[in-house]
Amino acid sequence: MQPTSTTIVEVSPRDGLQNEAKILSTEQKLELIRRSIAAGIKRIEATSFVNPNRVPQMADAEAVMAAVPRRPDIQYIGLALNVRGAERAVAAGVDEINYVVITTDKYNMANQGCLTADTLAGWPKVAAMARAAGKTATFTMAATFGCPFEGEVPVQRVVDLAREGAKENPSEIILADSIGVGVPTDIEAKVAAVREALPGIPLRCHFHNTRNTGIANLVAGLRAGVSGFDASIGGIGGCPFAPGATGNIPTEDVVYMLNRMGVETGVDLEELIDTAKWLSGVLEKTMPGMLSRAGNFPRAA
Amino acid sequence: MQPTSTTIVEVSPRDGLQNEAKILSTEQKLELIRRSIAAGIKRIEATSFVNPNRVPQMADAEAVMAAVPRRPDIQYIGLALNVRGAERAVAAGVDEINYVVITTDKYNMANQGCLTADTLAGWPKVAAMARAAGKTATFTMAATFGCPFEGEVPVQRVVDLAREGAKENPSEIILADSIGVGVPTDIEAKVAAVREALPGIPLRCHFHNTRNTGIANLVAGLRAGVSGFDASIGGIGGCPFAPGATGNIPTEDVVYMLNRMGVETGVDLEELIDTAKWLSGVLEKTMPGMLSRAGNFPRAA
Repeated sequence: MQPTSTTIVEVSPRDGLQNEAKILSTEQKLELIRRSIAAGIKRIEATSFVNPNRVPQMADAEAVMAAVPRRPDIQYIGLALNVRGAERAVAAGVDEINYVVITTDKYNMANQGCLTADTLAGWPKVAAMARAAGKTATFTMAATFGCPFEGEVPVQRVVDLAREGAKENPSEIILADSIGVGVPTDIEAKVAAVREALPGIPLRCHFHNTRNTGIANLVAGLRAGVSGFDASIGGIGGCPFAPGATGNIPTEDVVYMLNRMGVETGVDLEELIDTAKWLSGVLEKTMPGMLSRAGNFPRAA
Repeated sequence: MQPTSTTIVEVSPRDGLQNEAKILSTEQKLELIRRSIAAGIKRIEATSFVNPNRVPQMADAEAVMAAVPRRPDIQYIGLALNVRGAERAVAAGVDEINYVVITTDKYNMANQGCLTADTLAGWPKVAAMARAAGKTATFTMAATFGCPFEGEVPVQRVVDLAREGAKENPSEIILADSIGVGVPTDIEAKVAAVREALPGIPLRCHFHNTRNTGIANLVAGLRAGVSGFDASIGGIGGCPFAPGATGNIPTEDVVYMLNRMGVETGVDLEELIDTAKWLSGVLEKTMPGMLSRAGNFPRAA
C-alpha cells in the first residue's frame, strides 16, 4: 500500500552539517534554511542543542534560531539529548523538540555519556516542558536498525523503547538508522512491530545512505505506513563510525523518485537541485546526491 | 513476494569498463574476471563485440575471451548490437550472446546507427546462429524505463518489443534502465506487464544508479518476479548522457543488502569488497560503491 503523499523533514542544517568538517557561518546556515523553505519544505531540523565542545558545528544553535524566518506554516525542530538541551531548545524558540534516545547502552554512553535508561528518564521532563511551553515533542529511537558497538538490535527492544516513549504522547516516534546499516526487510519488520504495538502514533524514519540502502529503505518505510522521512539536501553529512561514508539520504534524489512514483511531497525539485549545487560550493565538495549531477528526467521541454 | 535466492550477473568487465575513461590492459580485465569468479559469480558479461573505433575499451574482446578461465560452472556473456557482432561473439567462444535492441528509434539510431526495427530484424539470425552453435541467446530491451532523446517509454511499447523478442525463445529477456531514470513503480509496472504477456520467459533487470534509485529498483524487481540482476563491482561505469553520473548498481552493495534480506546469491561479500578496493587502485578513482568505504555490518567478531 503506497500513500499518495508524504512529508519530508529537511535535516541538512542539523544532521547534515553536524558531520561535515567545514564549519559554516550562521548566515550560511540561515541561507540553507531559507532555500529549503523556498523549495517548499515545511519542517526543518534547524539545529541541535548539544555540547558545543563536542559538536562545534552546532555552537550557534541559539543564533540560528534567533534569525530563522518565522512563518505560521514552517515548523522548526531542535534536537536534544537531555533535559538541559531541551530547556535551551524551548528558550531558543523551536516549534518541536526532537528528543533522542539510543536503543543500545554502549552507543548511548558514547554519544550522550549515560545509559539508555538515564536518557529515557529525562523524557517525561522534556515532554512536560514541551507541553507547558505549547511545543510539540517527538521521540527518536537512534540505532533502531543496528549499533556500531553492540551489533544487531532486536525487534523487541525497539518495541519496548517505543512503548516507553509513547507514554508521554509524542507527536511522532522516529525510527532512526543512525549508522546506515538497515535493509528493506529490517525496516518493514520494525515498522510493523511498532505500528502494531502503538497503532495511534505517527511514525517517521531517518535513514542514512552509508551502505547504499537508504532510498530502498525509504520505499519500504513508505509502503509500511511511515508518514514522513528525514532527508538532507545534497546528501551531506557522514557517519562518525565509517570515515569516507556518505550521509543522510539526499532530499533531491528522494523527491525525484517520489515525484515519479506519484507520491506528493509539495517540494520543488529544481529548487532543491539548485540548493544542492550551491551547497556543493559552500562545502567545497562533490555532493553524494546524484540529481544535481545527473539532472532531472524527463527534462523540461 | 520475495524469493529466497537470486542470480547476480557481473557486468563490470563490459558495461562498467565501457564507460570508464581509463583503458585497462587485457590482463587487468582478466584479473577482474578471475576475481569475480573467486567471489562466487557464475555469470559474467565479459565483453562486447562492437566497433572498436566507437568503444576503444572493448577493442580486445577476442583476446579477453581467448584467455578467460574455462570452467563448466561459469557462463561468459558477450554483448552484440548486430549480426556481425554476434558472429564475432560465437567465434570468440562466448557461452551466451546478449543481443541488445533499444526501445526507441532515436536512441537506437544514436547507439547502433539504425532504427529499432532494423536491429530487431537481426535478432532471428542471431538467435538461429546461437542455436546452431549450441549457445544461449538473451534479448535485452535497452531504455525500457526512459530514453534520453524521446523521454518516457510507454508500457505497451515495452510489451510489444518483448513479444517480438520472445518469438525466438531467448533464455531471458532483460529490461534495462540504460540511463538510470527508473523508479520502483516503473519497474513494477513494466515487469508485471511483460510477465503477464510472456509468463514462461525468465526476466532479468539491468539498473544504473544514475539518480540513486538503482537499489530500490532492484528490490522492486526482485519482489515483482525478476530472477536475476546485472551489477558491477564498485559500481563503476557511468552514463554517456550524464557526465559525472555514476554507473551500474554496485555488486557489493547489492550483495550486502540481499544477504541481510535473506536472499541468497552465492557470492562472497568480503571478496567483492577486496575486488572493489583493488579496482579503485587500477582505475585511480574512488568507487561509487559504498561497502568498500563503509565496511560490512555487523563486523565479524
